[in-house]
Amino acid sequence: MKISPALALGRLDKVRRNMASQGVDGLIIPLGGDMKWLIGDETSPSERLTALVIKSDETVLVTPSLEYRGLNKMPNVFSIRCWDDGDSPIDLIHELLYGASRISFGEQMWARNVFKLQDAFKGKGVIWQDATAIISPIRRRKEPAEIAALAEVAACVDRVIADLQAGKVLFRGRTERQVADDVDRLMKSYGHEKVDFVMVAFGPNVDHPHHEPDNTIIGGGGILQFDIGGSKNGYFSDTTRCLHIGKPSAEISEAYDLLFKAHAAAVATVKPDVPANQIDRVARDIIEQYFPGKFIHRTGHGIGLEIHEHPFIVKDNYDPLESGNVFSIEPGIYNDRKWGMRLEDIVVVTDNGAQLLNHTCRDLVAI
Amino acid sequence: MKISPALALGRLDKVRRNMASQGVDGLIIPLGGDMKWLIGDETSPSERLTALVIKSDETVLVTPSLEYRGLNKMPNVFSIRCWDDGDSPIDLIHELLYGASRISFGEQMWARNVFKLQDAFKGKGVIWQDATAIISPIRRRKEPAEIAALAEVAACVDRVIADLQAGKVLFRGRTERQVADDVDRLMKSYGHEKVDFVMVAFGPNVDHPHHEPDNTIIGGGGILQFDIGGSKNGYFSDTTRCLHIGKPSAEISEAYDLLFKAHAAAVATVKPDVPANQIDRVARDIIEQYFPGKFIHRTGHGIGLEIHEHPFIVKDNYDPLESGNVFSIEPGIYNDRKWGMRLEDIVVVTDNGAQLLNHTCRDLVAI
Repeated sequence: MKISPALALGRLDKVRRNMASQGVDGLIIPLGGDMKWLIGDETSPSERLTALVIKSDETVLVTPSLEYRGLNKMPNVFSIRCWDDGDSPIDLIHELLYGASRISFGEQMWARNVFKLQDAFKGKGVIWQDATAIISPIRRRKEPAEIAALAEVAACVDRVIADLQAGKVLFRGRTERQVADDVDRLMKSYGHEKVDFVMVAFGPNVDHPHHEPDNTIIGGGGILQFDIGGSKNGYFSDTTRCLHIGKPSAEISEAYDLLFKAHAAAVATVKPDVPANQIDRVARDIIEQYFPGKFIHRTGHGIGLEIHEHPFIVKDNYDPLESGNVFSIEPGIYNDRKWGMRLEDIVVVTDNGAQLLNHTCRDLVAI
Repeated sequence: MKISPALALGRLDKVRRNMASQGVDGLIIPLGGDMKWLIGDETSPSERLTALVIKSDETVLVTPSLEYRGLNKMPNVFSIRCWDDGDSPIDLIHELLYGASRISFGEQMWARNVFKLQDAFKGKGVIWQDATAIISPIRRRKEPAEIAALAEVAACVDRVIADLQAGKVLFRGRTERQVADDVDRLMKSYGHEKVDFVMVAFGPNVDHPHHEPDNTIIGGGGILQFDIGGSKNGYFSDTTRCLHIGKPSAEISEAYDLLFKAHAAAVATVKPDVPANQIDRVARDIIEQYFPGKFIHRTGHGIGLEIHEHPFIVKDNYDPLESGNVFSIEPGIYNDRKWGMRLEDIVVVTDNGAQLLNHTCRDLVAI
């Protein structure tokens, strides 16, 4: 994923404004979502330290020499300092940030590098902190082109789900793994460049929200759950739907109605200035009434250049939603070893409330 | 990948001995290779904090509640403390390590969690460090069963390479990506459970050690390089071979002879007590004589439960090799935009020198 120099400069400018207002004079961003957002394409993930070092007057990409050839170079945006295997990137960063008094690390920097940098600056009275408060408030307000990219990839998943709901994939008598392989192919055929996860869970397996597809054979009756996501142009999809093999019991139908209501109520609550935790609360209250303790995860997570990013829709996040935030709404009910269900869509906060990026049928379709 | 309780307890016991001798009374291991090595299967990687907390008298897995169902539970090895979304795993760890005076973090712990933990212990005079010196000296001495697992997966790659060298995959007129898809299928058909990287680089692309396969069409003449790796039972393969489309020029043949010599000399130097950097030096000296500055990476990296792990075969690693260390030997020559080549095998240090795990032909096979 490449971004234009103008876009990168605009984002860096916003980041610098937050650095200034928070008194931070050095920012060190490791490989990952923040770096992709700031300068586009990143090099291969590796234990070799790659870091974007941002000061008020300079942006420098510190990179292993062997990655130089593959870099998306933008000389007007950042300069490049290479380090050879066996030399120290820590020395390079120390030199670049010499004299800094407050330094922030991107939240995913490895502890090993944090400690090495702190050692290099020992006795200088530097204050260290994590950079979430600098980056996240900007990055989570998606630009129109980002929302378009997320809508495009959501539409790809919708086509996959529609095929599943129409029974275009054979389920009965096959294993979760075999069905997952078919879903993988559908994901790619509808435009995903990478498939990141395909959860297929049948019967009692659906009580585990992160079940790995295995050799369980789909048949008889029960819930068949799909949680699938992948990326295109760097942006991710993530959607969950449940089918039912055969006719659902009254207990399952009623539980699904409740889940549907919890999902709809959360969506209806979305608008600017509502605190994130209120979305979680609205969905949770509806489920807890009948299934106390069975909704065992938060209601959602931000999505964009990472599958999970800020803002998190969880009880300890008091941040108000803003226009342009994009996140999942995915209540679930996990009834011990008996059954489980989840319903997940991606929504955008607009001034008029939630805009759903997924449009595929939300019913518990019986197959 | 599951491991037996006895194996886990044995490894934890060794870790505790290193903790005691280094005065460390609390160890916090995040998701990743170290956790896999200590207790086997890990849960899905996520921004939710999962950590194995080790004290002299207790081992506790701190895990998000939603992962509980999928955990490989070993009650004789570790107890489990779950945290719900919206509650704080930091508080849990703080409580578990209350009173500790020296705490080590696994090297891949996120900065965000490091800072939060440091805040929780503020004013307690805790000394913080990274756990590499505690874990790595043990983990890098592979046990016989680990070496067998690495040999098995190396044999899978050897079969893939043999097919490529025998021209069983069509190269001419196809793109790097198409060939990479074929290699991916071969990797799986010969026993890899996961394919982690398939580098296919043709012509000038081979001057970039981490080239991503693209739409470059293979044809005319030039080097065709494969760097491929995947895993089975948790252990990784990683091997590089070069083919040549058509007859290589005298320049390329001579350079390849040099690369072959550098590789062989490095392999011949491997034995216990030789410092890691000497392996790097031996290979580098041979290449530098004719191609100064064109061998742009270290000679190798440890391999096991991660593709890259300790020990690193690099100029600033003075650690002596030990029987049971397993690493790659992979010298390369990258001649700007003209050509590039690398030759990579996995070796085990034994009392009698290097045992090669790859046995496939090391020639520059012309296709």
